[in-house]
Amino acid sequence: MSQQTAYRTHHATDVTEALVGQKVTLAGWVDRRRDHGGVAFVDLRDTTGLVQVVIYDEEMARPLRSEFVVRVTGEVRLRPEGNENEHLATGRIEVVAEEIEILAKSDALPFQVSTALENESENKLPGEDVRLKYRYLDLRRPSMQRNIKLRSDMARAARKALDEMGFTEVETPTMIKSTPEGARDFLVPARLVPGSWYALPQSPQLLKQLLMVSGVERYYQIARCYRDEDFRADRQPEFTQLDMEMAFVDQEDVMAMAEKVIAEIWKAAGHEVQLPLPRITWQEAMDKYGSDKPDLRFGNPLIELTEFFKDTPFRVFQAEYVGAVLFKGGASTPRRQFDAWQEWAKQRGAKGLAYVSFAEDGELKGPVAKNLSDEERAGLMEAVGAEPGDAVFFAAGRRESAQTLLGAVRVELADRAGLLDPNKFAFTWVVDFPLFKSTDDPDDDDVAVGHSKWTSMHHPFTMPSKDWIDTFDQDPAHAMSDSYDIVCNGNEMGGGSVRIHRDDIQDRVLDVLGISKEEADEKFGFLLEAFKYGAPPHAGIALGWDRTAAILAGADSIRDVIAFPKAGGGRDPLTGAPAPISEAQRAETGVDYDPDDED
Amino acid sequence: MSQQTAYRTHHATDVTEALVGQKVTLAGWVDRRRDHGGVAFVDLRDTTGLVQVVIYDEEMARPLRSEFVVRVTGEVRLRPEGNENEHLATGRIEVVAEEIEILAKSDALPFQVSTALENESENKLPGEDVRLKYRYLDLRRPSMQRNIKLRSDMARAARKALDEMGFTEVETPTMIKSTPEGARDFLVPARLVPGSWYALPQSPQLLKQLLMVSGVERYYQIARCYRDEDFRADRQPEFTQLDMEMAFVDQEDVMAMAEKVIAEIWKAAGHEVQLPLPRITWQEAMDKYGSDKPDLRFGNPLIELTEFFKDTPFRVFQAEYVGAVLFKGGASTPRRQFDAWQEWAKQRGAKGLAYVSFAEDGELKGPVAKNLSDEERAGLMEAVGAEPGDAVFFAAGRRESAQTLLGAVRVELADRAGLLDPNKFAFTWVVDFPLFKSTDDPDDDDVAVGHSKWTSMHHPFTMPSKDWIDTFDQDPAHAMSDSYDIVCNGNEMGGGSVRIHRDDIQDRVLDVLGISKEEADEKFGFLLEAFKYGAPPHAGIALGWDRTAAILAGADSIRDVIAFPKAGGGRDPLTGAPAPISEAQRAETGVDYDPDDED
Repeated sequence: MSQQTAYRTHHATDVTEALVGQKVTLAGWVDRRRDHGGVAFVDLRDTTGLVQVVIYDEEMARPLRSEFVVRVTGEVRLRPEGNENEHLATGRIEVVAEEIEILAKSDALPFQVSTALENESENKLPGEDVRLKYRYLDLRRPSMQRNIKLRSDMARAARKALDEMGFTEVETPTMIKSTPEGARDFLVPARLVPGSWYALPQSPQLLKQLLMVSGVERYYQIARCYRDEDFRADRQPEFTQLDMEMAFVDQEDVMAMAEKVIAEIWKAAGHEVQLPLPRITWQEAMDKYGSDKPDLRFGNPLIELTEFFKDTPFRVFQAEYVGAVLFKGGASTPRRQFDAWQEWAKQRGAKGLAYVSFAEDGELKGPVAKNLSDEERAGLMEAVGAEPGDAVFFAAGRRESAQTLLGAVRVELADRAGLLDPNKFAFTWVVDFPLFKSTDDPDDDDVAVGHSKWTSMHHPFTMPSKDWIDTFDQDPAHAMSDSYDIVCNGNEMGGGSVRIHRDDIQDRVLDVLGISKEEADEKFGFLLEAFKYGAPPHAGIALGWDRTAAILAGADSIRDVIAFPKAGGGRDPLTGAPAPISEAQRAETGVDYDPDDED
Repeated sequence: MSQQTAYRTHHATDVTEALVGQKVTLAGWVDRRRDHGGVAFVDLRDTTGLVQVVIYDEEMARPLRSEFVVRVTGEVRLRPEGNENEHLATGRIEVVAEEIEILAKSDALPFQVSTALENESENKLPGEDVRLKYRYLDLRRPSMQRNIKLRSDMARAARKALDEMGFTEVETPTMIKSTPEGARDFLVPARLVPGSWYALPQSPQLLKQLLMVSGVERYYQIARCYRDEDFRADRQPEFTQLDMEMAFVDQEDVMAMAEKVIAEIWKAAGHEVQLPLPRITWQEAMDKYGSDKPDLRFGNPLIELTEFFKDTPFRVFQAEYVGAVLFKGGASTPRRQFDAWQEWAKQRGAKGLAYVSFAEDGELKGPVAKNLSDEERAGLMEAVGAEPGDAVFFAAGRRESAQTLLGAVRVELADRAGLLDPNKFAFTWVVDFPLFKSTDDPDDDDVAVGHSKWTSMHHPFTMPSKDWIDTFDQDPAHAMSDSYDIVCNGNEMGGGSVRIHRDDIQDRVLDVLGISKEEADEKFGFLLEAFKYGAPPHAGIALGWDRTAAILAGADSIRDVIAFPKAGGGRDPLTGAPAPISEAQRAETGVDYDPDDED
């Protein structure tokens, strides 16, 4: 970057040794100021980085404080020998100030944002509410600047890949009709049609399907989406997805396309992604990793012991499923730590977490050991692939619940062992999902779409897989779908499916979900109607853009890759939103409209 | 485009003479079907265009109807001599169908969408409500496909230019706090904070200013914006702007940047824009063209006659301002047409439209002529630059109103003379705007910001020009601002300003607007607070993206460049939005929350 403007001739990091002896004008913030025997040193910070300004004139230096905005004119010179800073791009030069104009002052800061402090890890950041209240200061920190910049680079990379594949970017409306997608809508009263409301889209799903029917064969959009959920950690009421849809394609076409997009995004951050990405079926992911979004940065898969324990005298293990996760070297874990694991499991809704450890002499220890048969005790170490000094955690019960618990144990063990390297990216496709899931799973907090004992695993517009097209409604428990998730480091980065493009199939799916013809017509009759006029086969995918950015940035939270995120409960500590409105505003919204009041 | 997928080996226009003798598989819509003595010809349409399919098998051809979605496999051959179609990219070849799979059927269409019909101008489009109800059919028409594609190309071009100038794309939130920007906010009840509301942004104005304070020195976003206005023609409740902001720049820097962006956008449509763009001051635009968005595709400026008529006996012309517009060759206009002009003027709120025509013998005609003095009659033709056979329209009264009427006459005359060529693009900057405008102008239907007799000409965050920084609040009637509009073909394509970055200046501007400290703190205290911590000088601009697309596409309405626009009153004939919501949904929104109901 080297755009000269009315306020500067150069950016900070443009000031290289090539400019020694020349006069430059710079503009930016006072990152830090130090005084040494009548000479002041100011680190001037702009969007490119830091440059050192030397001020010999005490009068000129006196008023300068942290985060003042200044314009400095001076001559570039080499730093005196021995004073170079190897950590800085501009570490071999400095600018001797001849003139300093204060463009804006700063009050005392609520917290320090200095680059120098951040780089030296001395920066004690305040709580997140304070960071969000003063987000404009928080964003000045180089790590946040990097995240914001990365997100911009990601978008450019994705668009480049999509452009090359012939995609058209289309903006879809955000004041739409409420449609059922598994969460609650945010609603907007329509002043001009009192008593009526718009909904903010949970995704452009139906609109992009309409675009396919419209003959826009390859669509994408970086789309704002809205879900009015009870805020769980790391969810935002408004979020972004990279939304893509293609006509005349099948699952393989979409996956190949998405892989190119992902590779280009990662390349923008300097990472090479090997294509094609690995795949795992949903069933295998559950069986081996206890998760439909397995973290493949490390191994240690679940071990199924249902068969092993089929004649067990231990009542807890007389279950539909028994499985285990190996805790390498875990035998030396103190008893109180194993107790803490029990607590950990209880917090996740489990009754506890059975374990056995294998002493160096091969003896089995732990409360469970004594409940097992001799045969089981003898064979266990081999069955779980343990060695003396290891331990093993068990879960038993309903297959999916037990596997999910073991999957969490697996990740927790890896986390404690420091195996979750944020600079390593383990992608996998998860494929072969069921079409439906039962609505009576107490552990599932998604809002069920429809009114039957079945709801959609993805959404109601997902195509049954070819083998199930004729029979999915006769056996919803086993019907499979043409859908796919892309997972990275244990996060669901995105997902998609082949969509239904025929109204007869759509009608049958809605029937399984217990959605009447009448309700369907009211809620998304426009889509069913569109399918009557030549809808092409189509399929698509969406990437959760905040999550993708957080993974690539190695950020702990998606809030660190969003310029102005909401805090808990949907509050914005910066602007105070949401806020009460005036009576006059309320009256205008029409929410208090009563048709009976009409003359 | 030549992406092979599960459904096709080639797109329609990939099928060139180079493929003669080869087998191809195509997929798309039946655009038109003709039968000639047992042979059927089907124009197959996909996103790239048309290709002719020949079907010899009557059984195969029989079921095919317009807009059926089909997959065709067959061999490419040259068309028989004499049957070539020069208008078609694929006009020299055809595909002899060996296999046709019907992927989806179509009911009888509510209106025809065939390319062939559209190209032959035979296509009688239905009313816009029907087009919007079946938007997925309307969008299949090649002219709409072109518009959608153009809009995507525009975005790519703008981003390319901005990338090269070091801009960062940042997404700003759309559930924000209600802020005053001259229109009504759309509001969203906050379920989790009952009684509180979010507002949808009228623009990202305050957020992008916060980004400048955050050290993001060059920001852009293609941003969705919302204004709850009484729908005027060609306004949408949600619209898009290309929003840009820069730190450490002045007006010239922003204008130079925006010109590069505009040139790149026009280049994407094959037009070269000569830079730098011309400029005109707001005062000159009003004086010469009676508009702050003058159409410069043609000349014929307003002629001021205030001085000429300073001693006139004609009472109507004894006014603050008298001006005229020449109606070249207008003398032959029949009296009833001049009467129609009176009606036209009355519909615009004027009392009428005085005129005089100059007969070939130099005699003055028309009702006004006899009211003028002999001296005025003698000098008028020269004063207005007319020749025998011309006519001239007059307006007299308050300067701005009279000029505005004449400006409208000027455009109407050009329109009737066929001078408004949509393929010609006349850009101009309009600069040197007043900082404030009076709130007592009955012709102005913007919502005034503030509570005094002055409101902002642009918005309350606009910087006074340097000459007026110290005195703008002493003489609001004459204070000027550092703001600029970009105009093309008589449309305001966008505008911007240098922003206030000092809280002392912002306080004084709010004071002129009659906004109390308390109200300011409540409404945008966060911005004033941010200015206390080192806000850099900054300036920006936004382009109305829908309008820009409509101008470049030569579309009559912005609705023709929006995939799914709203109809009048904010209705969506396609989905039925806005719509009533259920009692349960309403209860959840919290709009009926009463704090007194709390225990």
